[in-house]
Formats: sequence, structure tokens, C-alpha cells
Amino acid sequence: MPVKHVSEVEAANVTGGVKTTRQVLISADEGPNFAMRRFVMEPGGGMPRHTNTVEHEQYVLRGKARIGIGDEVYNVQKGDVVFIPQEIPHWYENVGDEPFEFLCVVPNKPDKTVILDNASC
Amino acid sequence: MPVKHVSEVEAANVTGGVKTTRQVLISADEGPNFAMRRFVMEPGGGMPRHTNTVEHEQYVLRGKARIGIGDEVYNVQKGDVVFIPQEIPHWYENVGDEPFEFLCVVPNKPDKTVILDNASC
Repeated sequence: MPVKHVSEVEAANVTGGVKTTRQVLISADEGPNFAMRRFVMEPGGGMPRHTNTVEHEQYVLRGKARIGIGDEVYNVQKGDVVFIPQEIPHWYENVGDEPFEFLCVVPNKPDKTVILDNASC
Repeated sequence: MPVKHVSEVEAANVTGGVKTTRQVLISADEGPNFAMRRFVMEPGGGMPRHTNTVEHEQYVLRGKARIGIGDEVYNVQKGDVVFIPQEIPHWYENVGDEPFEFLCVVPNKPDKTVILDNASC
């Protein structure tokens, strides 16, 4: 896969997310060390507070959101670069009127997502 | 560095490049497994044919370019995802009227750039 357009890649709903989809742009099978994904959170969407066993390196492509990392809350927008260390609780909330889109790169290591606050009963 | 804006990050000229700068958005000191960089190639700019000892996972943020990977040439634009395997010769040429901007993620491993075609004497 030397080149593909983001629009060609299938999007799947993210388990535990609200109005949130994920595309795997470069998979762990394609890249030897890390995977590149794109997340899209529609207005009102996001992800509840959770942890992952792998770190995230992110780049915001579009939109605005509040992101919680540990005990801090950040207002992020297009062009923001975000680093979330492994095992640190984090959450996302699209607070804008347009989709919140970002790239998220993770290492090719086993990942486990643990939802800490689940709004659904 | 949980959050920083791309405009806050210093840009440096790329050795061997033409009208090309690089910003290290998340360094090997900040991320445990891989680094995120942004390249900007002005109109008429680019990089000559070269190899790296590490693979590249890239996402085009803006502009248009021709990219050579191995024996193939690709026309890429915003939203294109590019994978360049380690040690495969590759080059870039901004063929548009605006800057060609892309993210390039590399593993935290020793990298050596070898320029294969150098237009300068």
C-alpha cells in the first residue's frame, strides 16, 4: 500500500464511543512498528474516560474538542499535537459544530481499552 | 507535552532538501516508540532520491506533490496516506502552487539518510 486516500478506507464505529468512528489508515500488518488511525467524532460525540495500555501520538485535522488527560482538561483544535502516555486516563468531547477529526498513532503492541466512566447503564 | 500547537514548534531546513523544512512535533525523547514530524515543501521544493534506514508513515495535510517510491511515481494530495518501507529509494517534488505539507512518523531507531541523486555538484 504505498499510497491510498483516506476516503477509501472503511470506517467502523468505536466500541464505547459516542458518534465516533475509526479508520485504520496503516495497519499493524502494513507498518512494522506502529499503526496510523483516523478518528471522527460527530458534534455531541466523544469517548468516555478510559485507559489504554499503549501511548497515543495525535494530530488534530479538523474541529474542536475538550480532551481530558489525567487531571487536566485541554481545549484542542486543528493543528494541535497531543501526546497521551500509556495507562493515563483520558476522554474526548466534541464541543464544536463540525466533526472533530484527528490522527492517532499507536505502537504495534497489545492494547487493552478500559472504560472508567460509562454513561450508559 | 500533553498538547502543543504546530505553529509553536520550531522549523529547521532539511539537509539535502530544496525549500524544505521539518518540525519535530513529538520527539524521540517525548514518545517512547516513535516520533511525529511535519514537513513543509514550498512550491518548486522537494527532496532528491534518497534512502532511510527507517520506514515512514505519512499523511498529506495540504498541497500536491509527485512522490517516487522505488520504481513507481505517485501523484499525492491532501488526505493521502503514504507508506515508504525502510531502505526503499524515494523522492518528493512539490508540483503545486501552495506548500506541500505532510506528517511523517518514524520509529525511535537509528536513521541514516543517503542521498542517491544530488543535483548540486
